[in-house]
Amino acid sequence: MSCDDVRAPLEEEVLSKLRPSKVQLRTLSNLYELLKSRLASYLGSEGLSFIVEPEGSFAKGTLLSDHWELDVFVLFKDVDEAWIKAKARKELERALEGLPLLIKYSEHPYVTVSLMGLEADVVPVRYLEKPTRNMMGVSRTPFHTSYVRSRLNDCMADDVRLLKSLFKGIGAYGAEAHVGGFSGYLSELLIITYGSFHKAIEAISKWKPPVFIDPESVGDRRDLEERYCNTPLIVVDPVDPARNAAAAVTAEKLNLAITAAKLYLRRPRREFFHMFSRYVTLGVGVPAALLLCRGDYSNSPPGDVWGRLARASKSLSSIMAGYGFNVLRTSFYTDEHSVAAVGLLLDTLRLPAIEAVRGPQPYVSSEQIESFASSRSSEGLWFEEGLIGVRRRKIDSAQRALTEAAEQAPLPEGTSGCEVIVFDDVRDAAKISWVLRDWISRELASTPAWLLQG
Amino acid sequence: MSCDDVRAPLEEEVLSKLRPSKVQLRTLSNLYELLKSRLASYLGSEGLSFIVEPEGSFAKGTLLSDHWELDVFVLFKDVDEAWIKAKARKELERALEGLPLLIKYSEHPYVTVSLMGLEADVVPVRYLEKPTRNMMGVSRTPFHTSYVRSRLNDCMADDVRLLKSLFKGIGAYGAEAHVGGFSGYLSELLIITYGSFHKAIEAISKWKPPVFIDPESVGDRRDLEERYCNTPLIVVDPVDPARNAAAAVTAEKLNLAITAAKLYLRRPRREFFHMFSRYVTLGVGVPAALLLCRGDYSNSPPGDVWGRLARASKSLSSIMAGYGFNVLRTSFYTDEHSVAAVGLLLDTLRLPAIEAVRGPQPYVSSEQIESFASSRSSEGLWFEEGLIGVRRRKIDSAQRALTEAAEQAPLPEGTSGCEVIVFDDVRDAAKISWVLRDWISRELASTPAWLLQG
Repeated sequence: MSCDDVRAPLEEEVLSKLRPSKVQLRTLSNLYELLKSRLASYLGSEGLSFIVEPEGSFAKGTLLSDHWELDVFVLFKDVDEAWIKAKARKELERALEGLPLLIKYSEHPYVTVSLMGLEADVVPVRYLEKPTRNMMGVSRTPFHTSYVRSRLNDCMADDVRLLKSLFKGIGAYGAEAHVGGFSGYLSELLIITYGSFHKAIEAISKWKPPVFIDPESVGDRRDLEERYCNTPLIVVDPVDPARNAAAAVTAEKLNLAITAAKLYLRRPRREFFHMFSRYVTLGVGVPAALLLCRGDYSNSPPGDVWGRLARASKSLSSIMAGYGFNVLRTSFYTDEHSVAAVGLLLDTLRLPAIEAVRGPQPYVSSEQIESFASSRSSEGLWFEEGLIGVRRRKIDSAQRALTEAAEQAPLPEGTSGCEVIVFDDVRDAAKISWVLRDWISRELASTPAWLLQG
Repeated sequence: MSCDDVRAPLEEEVLSKLRPSKVQLRTLSNLYELLKSRLASYLGSEGLSFIVEPEGSFAKGTLLSDHWELDVFVLFKDVDEAWIKAKARKELERALEGLPLLIKYSEHPYVTVSLMGLEADVVPVRYLEKPTRNMMGVSRTPFHTSYVRSRLNDCMADDVRLLKSLFKGIGAYGAEAHVGGFSGYLSELLIITYGSFHKAIEAISKWKPPVFIDPESVGDRRDLEERYCNTPLIVVDPVDPARNAAAAVTAEKLNLAITAAKLYLRRPRREFFHMFSRYVTLGVGVPAALLLCRGDYSNSPPGDVWGRLARASKSLSSIMAGYGFNVLRTSFYTDEHSVAAVGLLLDTLRLPAIEAVRGPQPYVSSEQIESFASSRSSEGLWFEEGLIGVRRRKIDSAQRALTEAAEQAPLPEGTSGCEVIVFDDVRDAAKISWVLRDWISRELASTPAWLLQG
């Protein structure tokens, strides 16, 4: 341990829960050694040339105590990409024969071993001397691991834990499309760049997009800014300088992180960290409209289900806004098995019976003015600052609007049917005992405690 | 008659109603001659040196048949401004002794004679050889009259009638503060500038503010644009090149004129002209909130009552918008005697029980973020694109909101008490028999027919 910054007692207290215990680490080591020896002896007997090595948080020492995971990579020498795609998986399965194996979906073949309540991914890749441009994701992993190991000391590894835990606590952790947040590797890069958790939070609190960070000063800024022009955050990947390690981060999640960093600096509290998350029920009744779908979602990779659900949620929200509803909060949920749901908080379940539409500026063409006037004139039209037309609203209930919206939204494949359920007060939906209760309680019917002041 | 442009039959038909009849003109001439001879004989006998001359639309030949008015100016020579202020009125009253005189309020002294159902204003001013900068309003009048007479032929005078009538028909006529529209003189300048009614309408339809017009090319554009930088329309006064003859025109009335000009060109109809105004009852029920005040308004100049009412209306509308109401239309009315009212059309009389407030950008100071969070956190707060807080709405009924708003609005002096009356459907307010019925029917519960297409 060699920390330049002295951590606050609060952060030390949080860390004592985030750090895996000795027993946990020994268990993972034992599993790793078991897998390594099984792989080594079988693959060796096959005459293959390879290296087995641990990757990911376990290898980098940045594991969180509530998220056990073990990534074991087999780096094959003297084979080509086609061999990896066609044969590697079979070889691994034979090497691990007898162990309980799970089949998972991915573009890249890999095998998951489930043992003693732990899951270990065993991933075959081609051995590369050094990183190349446009490597596939998994090919980069060994280089990420060795880069991070070369830069992090134990103290900084703890700082990575704090940062990952804060991102999880505020809902900004994960590079998956449906999250659009900060990956583990990105968290590590931020600690390497800024030196400590505290300095990273201070830096984040001052970010204003577009943000450009180059931890090892190896990137071509002009080129990166051009290729990632729609990305609010660019963090140059030291292992592949043409790559933005923060490409997944959306403007919304970036702003969330900036907001949280500012509030944390004003008043650090354990509620910012994911193992201390708390949700405080809303103090006022907010109307909610829920779309609850049933189907068979176990045949699709969970990432696909979540991804489609995220797009459905965005689409439903924008259709509802188009109908005139004020959408205050959206969330989505799936058990990855038979239930998928989208929830919207609104300020009302019923809009006024009429709607007013403001006309074009007077400086547009006569045709446009006339066309607006003629489209409204049967119900009511006048001039107040500009042309205003009124008409009876076609759809004024949230129930009906969401039902119509659902017909246009890209629901996850496997959906067999959906229903719309509305509540005058979302807190009621969190009281009844049903499959959506926990999700609603956390994501719709409450304020996250880290946002609460005083 | 020497018209360059051939007028459309529709416009000729309209003109035949707008032009005063021979009898009307003879009556006005007779009244003018009577006043002139009374003034000449008495003032001459007092040894004063003066000229009596007609001014305004009567003198310029641009009178409308439904608006009889006669302005008679007495231009005193060899007197100073102090004499005009202190003595002129008394002299005029003596000269006109025996005729029914009305006392009107103005900064400048004048006498109104009411005879044979006609009113004639007799106005004393100092005789000036030629216009000077910063003349008082009435001093400019004789020069306006003679300038316009020198430029308008009979045909153009008819075009002025059409333009004034169109401005009246769409509600954009009058330089009074509570209208903010086009004066008679400004209408004359536009016909002089563009040559005909049709050409003026074509020009107006293409205006895009800021608009600069200099009929006689005598203005200093840079200087005028600087001094009238908040005025969307500048029309240089040929009689006083440092003056903007369109200073009264608001952006709203300018946009109204542009919109109407565009629609007129697409489909000319008599409903654009004030003597053919028609109002078509709304095809849909729109909620209305009315403030009805009683008081004694006959002690203030009508212009002051209307002006204060206009300000009250603006203020009520913006306070209601602040409460969260969507104000679709506003209008105000006074009988100049005992009733003053403001009416608002809204899309609903009751807002949702909760209101959402969006927080500041994440890039503001930590203090501002924290202050927003702490002000909301008791009722509900989350992050969705940005911080959003919800709270119970303090005032959700239009009845109560307008009652509170009325306490802050600058109601006309003399008001003794007000009440708020709301209607789910403004058309109901136009059905019952009460003092506000005509105003509501025209200004709130209907579409002006000139806006109707098809």
